[in-house]
Amino acid sequence: MTAATPDLITSVARRHSEVYAPSSPVVHFDASAPLRLACQQDLAPFSIAYQTYGQLNAAKSNAILICHTLTSDQYVASEHPITGKPGWWDALVGPGKPVDTDRFYVICPNILGGCMGSTGPASTNPKTGAPYGLSFPVITIGDMVEAQARLMDHLGIDQLFAVIGGSMGGMQVLEWASRFKDRVFAAVPIATAAWHSSQNIAFDEVGRQAVMADPEWAGGNYYAEGKVPRNGLAVARMAAHITYLSEEALHRKFGRTLQDRSALTFSFNADFQVESYLRHQGSTFVDRFDANSYLYITRAMDYFDMRESSGGVLANAFRGTRTRFCVVSFTSDWLYPTRESREIVQALNAVAANVSFVEIESDKGHDAFMLEEPTFFATVRGFLSAAALKRGLAARPESQA
Amino acid sequence: MTAATPDLITSVARRHSEVYAPSSPVVHFDASAPLRLACQQDLAPFSIAYQTYGQLNAAKSNAILICHTLTSDQYVASEHPITGKPGWWDALVGPGKPVDTDRFYVICPNILGGCMGSTGPASTNPKTGAPYGLSFPVITIGDMVEAQARLMDHLGIDQLFAVIGGSMGGMQVLEWASRFKDRVFAAVPIATAAWHSSQNIAFDEVGRQAVMADPEWAGGNYYAEGKVPRNGLAVARMAAHITYLSEEALHRKFGRTLQDRSALTFSFNADFQVESYLRHQGSTFVDRFDANSYLYITRAMDYFDMRESSGGVLANAFRGTRTRFCVVSFTSDWLYPTRESREIVQALNAVAANVSFVEIESDKGHDAFMLEEPTFFATVRGFLSAAALKRGLAARPESQA
Repeated sequence: MTAATPDLITSVARRHSEVYAPSSPVVHFDASAPLRLACQQDLAPFSIAYQTYGQLNAAKSNAILICHTLTSDQYVASEHPITGKPGWWDALVGPGKPVDTDRFYVICPNILGGCMGSTGPASTNPKTGAPYGLSFPVITIGDMVEAQARLMDHLGIDQLFAVIGGSMGGMQVLEWASRFKDRVFAAVPIATAAWHSSQNIAFDEVGRQAVMADPEWAGGNYYAEGKVPRNGLAVARMAAHITYLSEEALHRKFGRTLQDRSALTFSFNADFQVESYLRHQGSTFVDRFDANSYLYITRAMDYFDMRESSGGVLANAFRGTRTRFCVVSFTSDWLYPTRESREIVQALNAVAANVSFVEIESDKGHDAFMLEEPTFFATVRGFLSAAALKRGLAARPESQA
Repeated sequence: MTAATPDLITSVARRHSEVYAPSSPVVHFDASAPLRLACQQDLAPFSIAYQTYGQLNAAKSNAILICHTLTSDQYVASEHPITGKPGWWDALVGPGKPVDTDRFYVICPNILGGCMGSTGPASTNPKTGAPYGLSFPVITIGDMVEAQARLMDHLGIDQLFAVIGGSMGGMQVLEWASRFKDRVFAAVPIATAAWHSSQNIAFDEVGRQAVMADPEWAGGNYYAEGKVPRNGLAVARMAAHITYLSEEALHRKFGRTLQDRSALTFSFNADFQVESYLRHQGSTFVDRFDANSYLYITRAMDYFDMRESSGGVLANAFRGTRTRFCVVSFTSDWLYPTRESREIVQALNAVAANVSFVEIESDKGHDAFMLEEPTFFATVRGFLSAAALKRGLAARPESQA
């Protein structure tokens, strides 16, 4: 049993508070407008929490939707309410940055199934008055995108100037471009794929089994019992974290360097820096993330297969598109290798879409898109500027013109 | 709590029986000849269980030592006493096979720290009369090799015709060639490295944390309580298993194929074949392997660094060698990639060793060396035949000459 220390209670309370009363704006969609999910269940009511940056222009034509990754959230460019850390894509998004909030109105919603204010397995099931747990329906990337479209309706935004996202965020970008062809002027899918590979499903399954193996998970009903499957979720995060880095990056960062000691201890202590680093990644993650959300979101990624859902021909997903695409991959990303981006580019070429494709030289692995990568930043800045010109957006926001 | 079902009791009993009374021969080294370990502790008494195949010739010059991998054992070419499966390297070792037991006398010992009859954490600690658990000393690859040398002394074998091993077995081969230069005529390190990389340490640490996170592990004292940390060890095995395969192999074997169903179930069942396969790998492993052995052996691999132990220059490890080396790697092995074999070859070249190096084209990943790979088999057969000629071994064993 996890001892219910004051620290643990505080950590759990802070996470719960973000589920029910997020620090960001939130829109509640009531029972009159259920969301029809891919599994054919209706979800109602549901909430989408979101954060915005910059100003929407009068024509509502300068909105950029940022779709987040598996474990990030709406705090793309502002302090995280639990960890106090800067926004997860702070390097890319902000005033004067490649996604320039002096110019664009950036919206970043917490995904459906998340745990930062949008409806997910930690939310209250209206039928029982208790947290959903495993009674939450299994959702898809498409479901997340449909919920985001409801948010755009609510905000009165007919067409997004751009939809941008990396990794699972890139999957959402592709779904947006496919489902809402008239609502996406430009799309930037980064370090992503049109279907989840066998290897990626395998890693996700290891993570889920680690969570479910933890007795504190209690069949998904840990909320009621005040438990947290800390150990299982930490192991899941550790395994996943290795896949976010390249072997080169691990070697450069850590090599075989020892942690705060000059010799091996002949024990199971974290002798090596890389062990200490991974343990830290595991334990801090647990403080800010819900274990059931981790299960549901990885499942959504595994189910993602736009080729299958387009009759076996990926190009069908984009037929008739007028969106401008900028597809980005990174040389050392082995989770979503360049060849998977090429599959997307080939499908877009097959329907004569307007697409540019950039493979960025980097040895930082999948994580590269979250880090300072000058060529990547220049690519995004350049693509958005050119697209803004085509869209007739002013170089400075109208309010300041 | 794991329910103590009859199946579980049988499985535990069978594993325990192999620890204390293995199905293979076993040599007991008594307290008069302790093994001085790298950690500076003396281990005594200790036992080494081993299996042999073929006939030792009168000159005792045709012996081949096979060093096993992390999770395999002495049953290299004969039925496993627990699983009933054929020997783990049955394709390579046997009458008329590349390691021809009509010609060579093959010895395969269970490693020190293992759980199939050689002394390890599941063995009885003579000081307490109870299983060692975590009171077993942390051992190294060098310690395993020193114990094997004791076995060779016992068998009266001064010089091994060849030492062969893949993965962790290859690490033992390198230690043999370095520590006992006059006792190794030929050495075949396969799909291995001279030091464990940061990424490999990271994966091992995830596995250990998964085991230790399981409450049934009970601080390593699960034996006494009749528990087995099944879930944790299964998760560790699942994570490791992904690293043994290439992405191509996973794709070819499983792709996104569903398991015994025609549509997604929108659940956490094993919808995909790859999930079902991994779960099976995890659960069957637990039936035949001791969780503490898994901790100790992965630790030994992490500690392995022949460059560090040779004053920072790997070549020093082999200075003065007269052994003939055949270094083998596989193109799609990302656990021990070819560049790590090249480091070994370069060190051997630096001391003007007799070395041939073969990179085998294969898309099967690290596992390739355990599978039917004709080019690999031809390489081993050819190298051993040429070395046997140099050693003056008869083409047929003397007993049949």
